[in-house]
Amino acid sequence: MAILVVGSVAFDNVETPHGKVDNCLGGAATYFALAASYFAPVRVIAVVGEDFTAEHEAVLTRRGVDTLGLEHAPGRSFHWSGSYLKNLNEAQTLNTELNVFERFAPRIPAEYLDSEYLFLANIDPVLQARVRSQMQKAKMVCGDTMNYWIRDHAANLAVVLRELDALLINDTEARMLANEPNLVRAAEKVIAMGPKSLVVKHGEYGATSFFGQHSFNGRPHLTTPFRAPALPLTDVVDPTGAGDSFAGGFYGYIASQPALTPAVFKAAMFYGGVMGSFAVERFGTERLQSLTREEIDQRFATFRELSHLE
Amino acid sequence: MAILVVGSVAFDNVETPHGKVDNCLGGAATYFALAASYFAPVRVIAVVGEDFTAEHEAVLTRRGVDTLGLEHAPGRSFHWSGSYLKNLNEAQTLNTELNVFERFAPRIPAEYLDSEYLFLANIDPVLQARVRSQMQKAKMVCGDTMNYWIRDHAANLAVVLRELDALLINDTEARMLANEPNLVRAAEKVIAMGPKSLVVKHGEYGATSFFGQHSFNGRPHLTTPFRAPALPLTDVVDPTGAGDSFAGGFYGYIASQPALTPAVFKAAMFYGGVMGSFAVERFGTERLQSLTREEIDQRFATFRELSHLE
Repeated sequence: MAILVVGSVAFDNVETPHGKVDNCLGGAATYFALAASYFAPVRVIAVVGEDFTAEHEAVLTRRGVDTLGLEHAPGRSFHWSGSYLKNLNEAQTLNTELNVFERFAPRIPAEYLDSEYLFLANIDPVLQARVRSQMQKAKMVCGDTMNYWIRDHAANLAVVLRELDALLINDTEARMLANEPNLVRAAEKVIAMGPKSLVVKHGEYGATSFFGQHSFNGRPHLTTPFRAPALPLTDVVDPTGAGDSFAGGFYGYIASQPALTPAVFKAAMFYGGVMGSFAVERFGTERLQSLTREEIDQRFATFRELSHLE
Repeated sequence: MAILVVGSVAFDNVETPHGKVDNCLGGAATYFALAASYFAPVRVIAVVGEDFTAEHEAVLTRRGVDTLGLEHAPGRSFHWSGSYLKNLNEAQTLNTELNVFERFAPRIPAEYLDSEYLFLANIDPVLQARVRSQMQKAKMVCGDTMNYWIRDHAANLAVVLRELDALLINDTEARMLANEPNLVRAAEKVIAMGPKSLVVKHGEYGATSFFGQHSFNGRPHLTTPFRAPALPLTDVVDPTGAGDSFAGGFYGYIASQPALTPAVFKAAMFYGGVMGSFAVERFGTERLQSLTREEIDQRFATFRELSHLE
């Protein structure tokens, strides 16, 4: 039931209406791993630079995340600067320094090869495909991508899409990938590209999952869309990592269950929303570092009530 | 259990990616009345011009809508032209001709004074307040407004807001009314202006209701927000009137029930979404003219399934 995530570990400079932080530990793999760690064992493959200290690594290991696959390279870690001052729903990227990430060549420790759940976070689809081909024992493969790969690396991305049980992207990315403004038609076109299911994240409005004709390993699955709400929040301190935290909660819950039934998929959509809602309550990964399972289950109950008819 | 709606009856020219229609019967009161007519008796107060024929009136009366309050004035009816070519979620107004609507002075027939449910559709808040003050037997009052009244007629609108059990507006209007980008804080500020509850419509993402400290006529009420989903639709042919149809389904269902319990309010949010989803399937009010209660309840079941955890 271990989840292997391959993706970025980064340092972020973020400004939002609530303030500003510099060199805050971030990156898709970090948010995903912390969120998933409350549900299942998590293993990380990523590259970091000399600015990534033992204290940074402890943020992951304190949550039980296996960092054997964390490659330490000479130079600086990936740095990202973004602002949410204009729009809390979409980051404005101010600066990106790939640094050690530029030559990232994921190496999979032998100890990781038995991971049953593989998450390909948003990185070059060539690397996503390479990792996927080496993980022959993975019984479920999910992934993320972004506008840059959709627009300029479509052929490489197509290879990855054919391998996915679930693709998790946001509205804009889904519409861009399908070149279709209507979300339902876009989902049909994306699923025709290969993924067995598509989870479209709507930020403050929740997420919707769409399903193709192909089942997950012969298990029963849904055919109609499913929509999970998001909690209306008084304070969105920092939206960074909300989508990756959603993916971590979603996939972590699935990995914690004996089988992927429709009921499990639906509950996983809710747990995704739950972890996303925690992530945005503080800057960076702060809130994801010290949750309890009780807090998570209380919020799950709140999410359930939010749209539940008697 | 009769609902009285005061608002606009209009002719619309609408263009969407699915085509173009001219002089299509529309207006907030029309959409509201047709949607509500599947649940409760509806009475309309509005003004129309000489271009409004017996056939137009029959669209309402065939659905059992009482048109005694429909004033026929010399001149042309209110005409609106809008385009959804750039954005299906927000109409671009190309032209507005108020015509007979410019001097609309709602007159309430004596036969309407016993209406228990009053809906103040989007018209000048001075007229909304005047109607409300004459309807002393109304046990529930709901209303709508728009950016123009919020921005330029705030003092008049404030009078109306104090009278409302529920204000139904969209995200942009709620944020504008409260001058606050965060939706939860905006809702708190709007409720502090007087409405006992606020229903914020999110278009394709559903709707969220927020509640104040004051109860509805001493009945039990909700204190935490409630979110109803919207159905992901393959074809949104014409979004015009979706919000008014939501209001009609929402309020019609409430008026059909013996008491306004939290369970009724929640189900009403779902019925609002159901009627909105039908409205957008065809140009104008076409789809709302010939539904069956069975189709409505089938779709209600679909909405329920859409976000329902086992």
